[in-house]
Amino acid sequence: MRILGIDPGYGRIGFGIIDKVGNNFKLIDFGVIETDKNADLNVRLLEIFDKLNNLIIEYNPDESAVESLFFFKNVKTAIQVGEARGVILLALQKADIPIFEYTPYQVKQAITGYGRAEKGQIQRMLKVVFNLKKNPTPDDAADALAIAFCHGNYRIIK
Amino acid sequence: MRILGIDPGYGRIGFGIIDKVGNNFKLIDFGVIETDKNADLNVRLLEIFDKLNNLIIEYNPDESAVESLFFFKNVKTAIQVGEARGVILLALQKADIPIFEYTPYQVKQAITGYGRAEKGQIQRMLKVVFNLKKNPTPDDAADALAIAFCHGNYRIIK
Repeated sequence: MRILGIDPGYGRIGFGIIDKVGNNFKLIDFGVIETDKNADLNVRLLEIFDKLNNLIIEYNPDESAVESLFFFKNVKTAIQVGEARGVILLALQKADIPIFEYTPYQVKQAITGYGRAEKGQIQRMLKVVFNLKKNPTPDDAADALAIAFCHGNYRIIK
Repeated sequence: MRILGIDPGYGRIGFGIIDKVGNNFKLIDFGVIETDKNADLNVRLLEIFDKLNNLIIEYNPDESAVESLFFFKNVKTAIQVGEARGVILLALQKADIPIFEYTPYQVKQAITGYGRAEKGQIQRMLKVVFNLKKNPTPDDAADALAIAFCHGNYRIIK
């Protein structure tokens, strides 16, 4: 089963693509979708939609896992990131890919067994799990990889 | 010039379509897009996108005006309405329709000359402006009509 994990955002959207075969995980790709900082916010929404659609076509995931958002400095930021998240969910739904949502706490719990683990600890675990030469970077890509792994992990239990 | 006004939301999205010819306004249509309350939130995002695309194809607006969102009871609601708003902006951007945004204050100001006008006052003004037999309903549709009128009004000044 191929899983696409996504860390939502406006300027940088992390993605991680993994295969789960039996109880084994294989890393396929991870990185970030970036949008043009100088462009109008509405243009950037279309950029997110188009680039995510390209990823979906290229990797053809069976399921997706998206981080739930709860905490923001202010309502304006929450709405903006919500807008980007809406476009991401739309692209997945339109492509008929089942969507699962996890809180940051659930993701950390799934990877380290501890819901309040630090970023560095998560990245070291990902390095081990996916047999990487160094910790995955940038942070948004590592977070997306962690979300994908979290979903794969919960799927094993079922 | 044809203007599509939109009052964003998850469950009910108001729309109002008007033509501005010279300094005159003509009402074309107004109403609400409703989504299935029992459906998954992601399914409802796709519903909003598809139904708004149908409206765009049917009425072919030249420009659009969308209400800005700022105040919410809590961050979770802000994110959800943000998600719906993102999908609405995407549909407009994808159809290459210029998007203009107005705060509720600007809309009220444009219609009654008073930024803190009450809903009933706005609806009575819309009734007069568009020569309706009664106040426009429901509220979401009236709000969208007001946003469209607000945009048309600002365009006259230019």
